[in-house]
Amino acid sequence: MAVYTDISEIELEAFLGEYELGTLLSYKGIAEGTENSNFSLHTSTGSYILTLYEKRVEGSDLPFFLGLMQHLAQKGVSCPLPVSRRDGALIGKLAGRPAAIITFLEGVWVRRPTVGHCREVGRALGALHIAGQDFSLSRPNALSVAGWHRLWDASRARADEVEKGLAAEVDADFALLDKEWPTDLPKGVIHADLFPDNVFFLGEKLSGLIDFYFACNDLYAYDVVTCINAWCFEKDHSFNLTKGTALLAGYQSVRVLGADEREALPLLARGSALRFMLTRLYDWLTVENSPLVKKRDPLEFIRKLRFHRQISSAREYGLSS
Amino acid sequence: MAVYTDISEIELEAFLGEYELGTLLSYKGIAEGTENSNFSLHTSTGSYILTLYEKRVEGSDLPFFLGLMQHLAQKGVSCPLPVSRRDGALIGKLAGRPAAIITFLEGVWVRRPTVGHCREVGRALGALHIAGQDFSLSRPNALSVAGWHRLWDASRARADEVEKGLAAEVDADFALLDKEWPTDLPKGVIHADLFPDNVFFLGEKLSGLIDFYFACNDLYAYDVVTCINAWCFEKDHSFNLTKGTALLAGYQSVRVLGADEREALPLLARGSALRFMLTRLYDWLTVENSPLVKKRDPLEFIRKLRFHRQISSAREYGLSS
Repeated sequence: MAVYTDISEIELEAFLGEYELGTLLSYKGIAEGTENSNFSLHTSTGSYILTLYEKRVEGSDLPFFLGLMQHLAQKGVSCPLPVSRRDGALIGKLAGRPAAIITFLEGVWVRRPTVGHCREVGRALGALHIAGQDFSLSRPNALSVAGWHRLWDASRARADEVEKGLAAEVDADFALLDKEWPTDLPKGVIHADLFPDNVFFLGEKLSGLIDFYFACNDLYAYDVVTCINAWCFEKDHSFNLTKGTALLAGYQSVRVLGADEREALPLLARGSALRFMLTRLYDWLTVENSPLVKKRDPLEFIRKLRFHRQISSAREYGLSS
Repeated sequence: MAVYTDISEIELEAFLGEYELGTLLSYKGIAEGTENSNFSLHTSTGSYILTLYEKRVEGSDLPFFLGLMQHLAQKGVSCPLPVSRRDGALIGKLAGRPAAIITFLEGVWVRRPTVGHCREVGRALGALHIAGQDFSLSRPNALSVAGWHRLWDASRARADEVEKGLAAEVDADFALLDKEWPTDLPKGVIHADLFPDNVFFLGEKLSGLIDFYFACNDLYAYDVVTCINAWCFEKDHSFNLTKGTALLAGYQSVRVLGADEREALPLLARGSALRFMLTRLYDWLTVENSPLVKKRDPLEFIRKLRFHRQISSAREYGLSS
């Protein structure tokens, strides 16, 4: 949560002059998204989200992210629709930063997902994978195995500060993942960060997916296990098999996993848990403490990593045979 | 700016069950207000602001603050209207904190006020003073002279860290203000914090006043000079006489200042500058640094204090004779 950049009404009105959105009624910085500055924006034509892209987002990736949202929305996936400027561009400049306006989606993200929510998110993920198949741009996953190594190189020396023995434990995971990480499974556009705070619901009904700023081209099954890691563990770190079953059934109601994907799920789940452990570990060791930035505990994902090491078949996640 | 407390959709839905506001559509933490946690809330009946009162606000003061907003709104002052619960109460409990819902006001706060904005804010301040005259509750100003002494006692020893000589300089102000601070001027309900971020505009037209959490009973003329300090100085710390003239003319178009109030303005302005310098100094010395909490510079108000020391007549602020 963060607003890094404030903007004046004068700058904003000049920026809005490039759009056909009517007159400015209000804007307020919102405490969502950790990478960018986001504002809730009201104009005489409706409600929008204004995003200023801060330095952690590569400007050259923006056409992929915004183009993808536009493509998915046009394919019927409920996600924010980027608003075009008068000149047709989706990206402008505000307060010295790349900036875009997207439509506002109603819905709340669920702090306590139910089985029903898990089924819905599985279904939406499948629909996203299908809808993305004819998207013309592509973007490699900067946070796949090579990226994990970079994070680990920067964190390993201090990893045992978080838990004694962690460095050796994670070295062993890398040895396996380097050797066995699959590359020949079905791939395409994935969301790559479909955690509960990126999925909106109205009651039990999914109303939209947001935050495509980690989206990339990678294995579909990897996106599935990231959702399992994000949605199917309880606060006490236990795995909820009923939720796993619902999420996988929801997914397969739209896109059926192949035999090769099913077999790979436990290894992919380990990799996905490692990826989120590593970004949290890196932030834990490098980001300054503050009462307002709640750093997320890397140990949560170490626990998930250990869980996945014990899994021998995707059936243990609830995959129907 | 801050959201200190997150709330779950389950808690929020239970809380909303006490109101007749329809179904929950969305809520997002907003980065406004430094004392409380604020959320932009959409329900099927409209847009609202949900506030959780954090520890810096005294729960026993809430009936004054919320009752005042209700009173002023009923008198035609454009300010948020607190929403009553089914049981008639304006205050409930959420996430262990006192919480209230108020209506959402459109408008932007102006980072760069014009002369026209200053005239409008003067007029609105006068209207607020008149409308508050028959409000039945009262609240002493915790940040008047005795309160300043408490802040100074807690900060004085380290004041010279901010600027060498500051401790002695401010001691001299206290000697004068203790002796000459007026108590027999017209008084009533004042806003006490009517800075630009608490006043919304749609273009040049004032659309509402917000944030009544410093409101109290004190001298009307003290509220006027707080507005002069807040609105009539430029970023380079120079005093803009045209803005001062406009603000005072706007105020007097609604409520004319008496001869005793006019005479007291320079001294009151010194006191008001000291008050904001002291809260900033205290925060500067005690609040932890963070990239997300922008601590405000106490020196800005020391400069204003020095300016007011040179003033011998309210005419120098632009008051018409």
